[in-house]
Amino acid sequence: MQLKLPPIAKIGDSLDQVSSPALVIDLDAFDANIKKMADFSRQHKIAVRPHAKAHKSTAIARAQIANGAVGICCQKLSEAYPFALQGIDNIHISNQFVGADKIAMAVALARHVNLSICVDHVAQIVPLGKAAKQAGVRITVIPEVDVGHGRCGVSNADDLLGLLDVISRHDALTFGGLQAYHGGAQHVGDWDQRQIAARLSADVAAAYVKQLDARGVQCKVVTGGGTGSVEFDASSGVYTELQPGSYVFMDRSYGSNEWKGTMKFQHSLFIVSTIMSTARTGKVVCDVGLKGVAVDSGMPLVASQKHASSLRYIAANDEHGILEVLDDDVRDRLGERLLLIPGHCDPTANLYNQYVGFRGNTVECLWDIDARGLSQ
Amino acid sequence: MQLKLPPIAKIGDSLDQVSSPALVIDLDAFDANIKKMADFSRQHKIAVRPHAKAHKSTAIARAQIANGAVGICCQKLSEAYPFALQGIDNIHISNQFVGADKIAMAVALARHVNLSICVDHVAQIVPLGKAAKQAGVRITVIPEVDVGHGRCGVSNADDLLGLLDVISRHDALTFGGLQAYHGGAQHVGDWDQRQIAARLSADVAAAYVKQLDARGVQCKVVTGGGTGSVEFDASSGVYTELQPGSYVFMDRSYGSNEWKGTMKFQHSLFIVSTIMSTARTGKVVCDVGLKGVAVDSGMPLVASQKHASSLRYIAANDEHGILEVLDDDVRDRLGERLLLIPGHCDPTANLYNQYVGFRGNTVECLWDIDARGLSQ
Repeated sequence: MQLKLPPIAKIGDSLDQVSSPALVIDLDAFDANIKKMADFSRQHKIAVRPHAKAHKSTAIARAQIANGAVGICCQKLSEAYPFALQGIDNIHISNQFVGADKIAMAVALARHVNLSICVDHVAQIVPLGKAAKQAGVRITVIPEVDVGHGRCGVSNADDLLGLLDVISRHDALTFGGLQAYHGGAQHVGDWDQRQIAARLSADVAAAYVKQLDARGVQCKVVTGGGTGSVEFDASSGVYTELQPGSYVFMDRSYGSNEWKGTMKFQHSLFIVSTIMSTARTGKVVCDVGLKGVAVDSGMPLVASQKHASSLRYIAANDEHGILEVLDDDVRDRLGERLLLIPGHCDPTANLYNQYVGFRGNTVECLWDIDARGLSQ
Repeated sequence: MQLKLPPIAKIGDSLDQVSSPALVIDLDAFDANIKKMADFSRQHKIAVRPHAKAHKSTAIARAQIANGAVGICCQKLSEAYPFALQGIDNIHISNQFVGADKIAMAVALARHVNLSICVDHVAQIVPLGKAAKQAGVRITVIPEVDVGHGRCGVSNADDLLGLLDVISRHDALTFGGLQAYHGGAQHVGDWDQRQIAARLSADVAAAYVKQLDARGVQCKVVTGGGTGSVEFDASSGVYTELQPGSYVFMDRSYGSNEWKGTMKFQHSLFIVSTIMSTARTGKVVCDVGLKGVAVDSGMPLVASQKHASSLRYIAANDEHGILEVLDDDVRDRLGERLLLIPGHCDPTANLYNQYVGFRGNTVECLWDIDARGLSQ
């Protein structure tokens, strides 16, 4: 008999039959999240370009595009390949890159999709302009301006104009507008403080737009914002396009934000786990550790109703998750199944090969995480 | 022209041509680590069964077996599949598992390899014994005893004897000995304190062996220990087999331990990174973030001689690494390449699809991380 790795789930299985650990999507919640963002985009007449770095799955990107998304963002060039190969033809690389290997990937992608990319340095532009011209492709260049994150992006109008000047000297490059993203603002817990942070970012972006306008340069696109700030970004009047990623899943970190408006999304992403050792008193051990959940933004939350008040995930070893028992129930929990909400969805999704989509208690689909591990 | 993701490196490339981020192995250091452990095993007449969870690569497991390893450990059943498929025929699952899907995998593996597994609960044994008998396979069962880690494993002789009793009632199961592993002891920084922790673990293991011996039960195998404690474990007289994993790579965490003996290994695993934004004063941004390095055991260490004293990796975002500039050199570092030593090798290796092996400055091999993501 040949040895063959079994699938983690089959369509029609019950959720209990999914081989743990597995990343599962509650499709009702997922669909509602996608619809909510689509409705918001229509109502506010603002483009939505979801960030595919959150899910890394062409199946999810197709669902987003089918619901009105204008295209997707990717954070890395190699990450964009599976999406381009699946026919998603409008991709923004919302990040800087340097090096001959990266230039070659950008040019190759631009042969197949409408490609825009970010820059914050002249040396990122010149070799790209030359290579694009030689290959006969056009690439849209969207300089990044720092609107408070303090990471990438130019920090004054002179530097921005310097970039525009170099872009304009390359026939194969087109100035497309500005990227103005403040990741930190997304995670300000307090709603009012988050609004202030988002407004400050929008004000900085607006000042750049005005300075370019005064020089006769139009910003067709101002792209940025995220799951934590869509309402503020849409009402700012400066953003033309939003880049939310996590809204499809809602991880524990975003879930812990304060939400006063109407744009709070539902938790749709869970990790199915099994309790595989109960040898210690006062704790149990499950099969989800560091290789099954990212803990950079805190430990996962126990979501299953049966266990939410009785178990708390307190530590992740490589392949073990340690849960503290909070109640006095002395029953042996060996073999019981847990649903965990990951602290941070992006790096958690990057650990798995597939999503298992379920509705009610039944597996409805398996979606490849086709861009997993593509970090170049 | 068809769109096709380029390889991250080709054999014969210089290290500078490897597409970053990439996980690279200094083969001289790697070979020396493998040889050092092989020599140690011979000299001390103790079996070495390296832990494949550290590298998840059949190419590396083959190198270990070619250098005298008696087999490998895996932490999960699905993880063992690629190794079994590549002909590694002696695999110990050094972990507990529960559930019909897991039982089926264990039985399937046992058709192809000499399989041993860990248990700490009767309910893990009974369904396995039935399924193995039905399938006509034999599985060696190695109960885990808690020797100080406080995670899995029984904590008294009565419980251990209860497991042995159940094992003995299943024709298809063979009692193989004891697993006695204390992960925490590996990471006690101070050499003398680490020795004390390892000795305490060995003493606990020895007491269990003695108790079984008094009942006429021989422990053919006592397996445990790791990279941080091999000298102590080998001299304990109780361990017959060591399970080191990280020694092939030596991450920053193990490198930070104090080492007085002769069994300190060399750093062989690095992440090649590129500085892709220098827009901020006093810091630079590289292309290795949370999806390129695990930070559960601390930030990666800048290893490249050119940058080790001038740059410190201080924060990981999803796709960005933030480095503080420590010197007064105002040169623009855009495009410069860094070698980073990951804080923790196991979950870092689990992020990548391939290792790029290099010698001197030349790429010599590409090794698939074939068990990456196999956590079931």
